[in-house]
Amino acid sequence: MSDEFSRIARYFAPLAGVAGRGLMDDAAVLAPPPGRELVLTVDQMLEDVHFLPADPPELIARKLLRRNLSDLAAMGAVPLGYLLTTALPPRLDESWLANFAKGLETDQKLFGISLLGGDSSSSRHGISLSATLLGHVAPGAALPRNGARAGDEIWVTGTIGDAALGLAARLKQLAAPTGSLIARSMLPEPRVGLELAGIVSAAIDVSDGLVQDLGHLCKGAGLAAMLHADLVPASEAASSLGAAVLETRLTGGDDYELLLAVPPGNGAALKAACGALPVTRIGVFQPGAGVRVIDDSGTEMHFQSSGWKHF
Amino acid sequence: MSDEFSRIARYFAPLAGVAGRGLMDDAAVLAPPPGRELVLTVDQMLEDVHFLPADPPELIARKLLRRNLSDLAAMGAVPLGYLLTTALPPRLDESWLANFAKGLETDQKLFGISLLGGDSSSSRHGISLSATLLGHVAPGAALPRNGARAGDEIWVTGTIGDAALGLAARLKQLAAPTGSLIARSMLPEPRVGLELAGIVSAAIDVSDGLVQDLGHLCKGAGLAAMLHADLVPASEAASSLGAAVLETRLTGGDDYELLLAVPPGNGAALKAACGALPVTRIGVFQPGAGVRVIDDSGTEMHFQSSGWKHF
Repeated sequence: MSDEFSRIARYFAPLAGVAGRGLMDDAAVLAPPPGRELVLTVDQMLEDVHFLPADPPELIARKLLRRNLSDLAAMGAVPLGYLLTTALPPRLDESWLANFAKGLETDQKLFGISLLGGDSSSSRHGISLSATLLGHVAPGAALPRNGARAGDEIWVTGTIGDAALGLAARLKQLAAPTGSLIARSMLPEPRVGLELAGIVSAAIDVSDGLVQDLGHLCKGAGLAAMLHADLVPASEAASSLGAAVLETRLTGGDDYELLLAVPPGNGAALKAACGALPVTRIGVFQPGAGVRVIDDSGTEMHFQSSGWKHF
Repeated sequence: MSDEFSRIARYFAPLAGVAGRGLMDDAAVLAPPPGRELVLTVDQMLEDVHFLPADPPELIARKLLRRNLSDLAAMGAVPLGYLLTTALPPRLDESWLANFAKGLETDQKLFGISLLGGDSSSSRHGISLSATLLGHVAPGAALPRNGARAGDEIWVTGTIGDAALGLAARLKQLAAPTGSLIARSMLPEPRVGLELAGIVSAAIDVSDGLVQDLGHLCKGAGLAAMLHADLVPASEAASSLGAAVLETRLTGGDDYELLLAVPPGNGAALKAACGALPVTRIGVFQPGAGVRVIDDSGTEMHFQSSGWKHF
């Protein structure tokens, strides 16, 4: 592979925005848009943890950006730009990097962001990637994780469980009925661009699993949640797999839908704000602690795990 | 080791500043101090590339912050806070993490920064770390890399070459006369806090090697540089090793001194701005391209490499 400086000039400098100074400086310089606050988040993707070595580099790049864009979406922020780190082992060839950069370019255009800076290193071990995403919000309008109140409804965008089922299909643990599940596990759709300030009282993106992420909203607010398993929206492909995959759907990660606390009476405003994106009421916050999942007969369900944790 | 959420709560949440929201949210929210622009930079540290597996975790953490702080120093920025990623293999024990966090805490206090957010992952391969540092500058006052003009003098802070000699000593390629060289290779001193705007025309930190980093200043400005090898300041320990280590000193990395382009006549102002920190004139920018290194007889010197590149 070409050396560090050639790689930066060839693949990354063309992706840089004005604040990135052509990646020719020690750092990026920017001011938030007038009257806005900055929102910052970072996520990494590691070989054999977040992706498999043979995954297409274009999709790895896009998922790296999208996981972070989803965090911005959960804050109600408008995406602005990003910093990138890459650590690449010598076994990778130039086409891997070219396709990785192509994936970045595709999603930069789709989401209106540009590269602000980064760091490019060799790796003696696996591929290691990270992106720091910047967005902006009106002052005080960032959506909190800890704002739910007892009586607030629990709503979720889109459908839940496709990504976990797609991963199971890729690992040959499951026969997927269509390619849509695998596609969703490799290229999530971050729900950026929704105007939810004033409508929801708390928000989080479903990255580690619905039950676990709902637990984060509960813990932040000092509340319990009752989740109706039968109300949790499933895609057509997931539905066709029946009740056997319910636990995988509710505790699997990587959906990148938004999980919202919504004061009673705000459901219609929420639907209007989400436009063509379906949004579904799936439970309620109550005094207490912890997440209770109940089936359609009202019986409490128990799962082996609530979601993904890194040990 | 404890799981992800326990680790975050125990070791990282206590390091969070106000904008980091106790690390309980999807992202950090902040505005730059009134009337200031933000400066952003990211650097990573990988096992077996940037540090050795047995290095003390406290020093790894501090060097991670300091490499980034040095980039802020090269922009003339005041440090503000940082985002952190850690990817840790299961072989590490809890004390590794506790000491790593202790190193972060030490340097947070020393440099007046706080943790804004991060991402904690397991790793199936080596240890992988990154930090995104934020700082701020007066609008338009960020020091550029590309601002040198023909006739500008080349100045450098501190002494050059200790870190490369320290690394050679650690790798048993060299008998170090004192522990100071090794100490400097493991814990660099970022030159933050100097008020250089209006005094220097360009700045970069010496991270990859003096000759190579001077080459970046030349390329950015479309100029050549003449560097007087005998003027390049050496520490007492480095001096005691004599002329045999000159190439290592001039092309080795990790010094984290500032390399500056200074218009003629500004030397006294530069010295005043640097206070107790020594600063030395080592050459001059000229029309042309590339870096010429000359010895005390005016003869051009040639080296095998100009500095560190990642392949």
